[in-house]
Amino acid sequence: MRLRAEKLVLMADLIGTVVFAIEGALTAMRAHLDLLGVMVIAFIVAMGGGVIRDLLIGDTPPSAIRDWRYPALTFAAGFITFIFSSAVLALPPLAYTVLDAAGLALFAVAGVQKALLHGIRPFIAVLLGTVTGTGGGVVRDVLLARVPLVLYADIYATAAFLAGALVVSLRRCGVPDTISAISGGVACFVLRLLAVHYGWHLPRATL
Amino acid sequence: MRLRAEKLVLMADLIGTVVFAIEGALTAMRAHLDLLGVMVIAFIVAMGGGVIRDLLIGDTPPSAIRDWRYPALTFAAGFITFIFSSAVLALPPLAYTVLDAAGLALFAVAGVQKALLHGIRPFIAVLLGTVTGTGGGVVRDVLLARVPLVLYADIYATAAFLAGALVVSLRRCGVPDTISAISGGVACFVLRLLAVHYGWHLPRATL
Amino acid sequence: MRLRAEKLVLMADLIGTVVFAIEGALTAMRAHLDLLGVMVIAFIVAMGGGVIRDLLIGDTPPSAIRDWRYPALTFAAGFITFIFSSAVLALPPLAYTVLDAAGLALFAVAGVQKALLHGIRPFIAVLLGTVTGTGGGVVRDVLLARVPLVLYADIYATAAFLAGALVVSLRRCGVPDTISAISGGVACFVLRLLAVHYGWHLPRATL
Repeated sequence: MRLRAEKLVLMADLIGTVVFAIEGALTAMRAHLDLLGVMVIAFIVAMGGGVIRDLLIGDTPPSAIRDWRYPALTFAAGFITFIFSSAVLALPPLAYTVLDAAGLALFAVAGVQKALLHGIRPFIAVLLGTVTGTGGGVVRDVLLARVPLVLYADIYATAAFLAGALVVSLRRCGVPDTISAISGGVACFVLRLLAVHYGWHLPRATL
Repeated sequence: MRLRAEKLVLMADLIGTVVFAIEGALTAMRAHLDLLGVMVIAFIVAMGGGVIRDLLIGDTPPSAIRDWRYPALTFAAGFITFIFSSAVLALPPLAYTVLDAAGLALFAVAGVQKALLHGIRPFIAVLLGTVTGTGGGVVRDVLLARVPLVLYADIYATAAFLAGALVVSLRRCGVPDTISAISGGVACFVLRLLAVHYGWHLPRATL
Repeated sequence: MRLRAEKLVLMADLIGTVVFAIEGALTAMRAHLDLLGVMVIAFIVAMGGGVIRDLLIGDTPPSAIRDWRYPALTFAAGFITFIFSSAVLALPPLAYTVLDAAGLALFAVAGVQKALLHGIRPFIAVLLGTVTGTGGGVVRDVLLARVPLVLYADIYATAAFLAGALVVSLRRCGVPDTISAISGGVACFVLRLLAVHYGWHLPRATL
């Protein structure tokens, strides 16, 4: 059982890594960074959230550093994106949004699962899932000297948070790990895309 | 004795948390973030310094994550500030300065105490106290893409540093923990307010 | 043998610390920060890379905090630079570039060595060496609300990365620690200076 849960975390993590590395490379190329900058931002977007999660859990060295598959995948994805930039950029903006929503969903669920595996309480595990999903993008924006998108974007971290809450609730109700993880991931993905499509957002203070 | 010192750290930490969460929420509302952004910044201002301290000490997961009271307090304070924003903003600027000085004093002292409890040498403990007091604000400013206030503000980190040095010195001279902690906190608070009132600042290089 | 390797890490680390602290203090003075801001930036530039490395390796508290020599050296170097600013600023820009290349080389090699000592795999050790060499500068630029120099500078992190790869390769071929470390350091230093002199840079995506 524990083994299967760990495999689930690993798979969601690896796919999310590729997705976010491509996204990071694209952002870096738009900011006119050189090849190294592109690789670094790809690495940071893909690994940032997980590294922050692992540091907070106290699971050091973080998977991103202990397991060679993570950096290898990241650099490969970043490099291929760099080489085929014209093809990648010819994709419609929707592809980009879908890719990002998928990465967010995968990492949010992987983050919650890993935190629970390490005996973190459910509420905090949900927070750590949100950090895993959004952390890489935050570090990217900080490095590019921008206010992180997640702080003002329509239902972004919120989708990750609600998905995490769903995973935790389903597990509480005795739903098997795999099913609750997949439900959470799908919920996050769909909610994010609906929010983008309909322009949903949270209330703002009127000062 | 050790128990009492731990209780002291906890109380200073919890009160400082509420104070800084309110301040963080206000800053986020002024930057026109949405409800989630307000909650995130409230959390970061309140928890940032302590999380950095705990990561550096190696005490993971950080209290902010292990102890549900910290995130619960932070989110409650952030949410209430968001709801009653007009009331909170009607407060005179002085109230804001006093609140911030109180948070700085509480966190600086709590940081020094916790570092000493973990067997960190006094000089480094004073540095960690300063990090605890100012770290949350630094992360907030970084996320809002500003140069951190602490780097150019009048006697801010300096007040935290001197207060920490006072705590350490008093303990060396055999003064009981509680009294040295309170003395340090009051010194930091008063020094910061005096610095704001009289416009004291440190020398600047003339280039 | 292990002892000698540790001494090598320590020496490279301490010299790199002084070099980077001076550089950090100069940057802070140019950004018109006050004495405290100068000390903080000196500390961060000198310690940032090593602290990030130690957190990632899981070696907490980081050397920068456990070993009083690091903060003491940093603050002394920062303070002296502040006092003798006019003399330091009269140095030709080349001196600044040479100093920085030396710090980069020392920290990159120290970082690789320390990671290897902690049983990190060679490829990741090279990455950690690059982080050690460039991390302080990244944190400095983030705090000053700039896009980190390393992301677009000519062959900067690249020099650190290649030097780390050289160290790892030489060790693999049975070259003694000391010689492989010195070779790596010299290679990084020379490569960085050649890159500045001839304006070498990595390819950029054309979008």
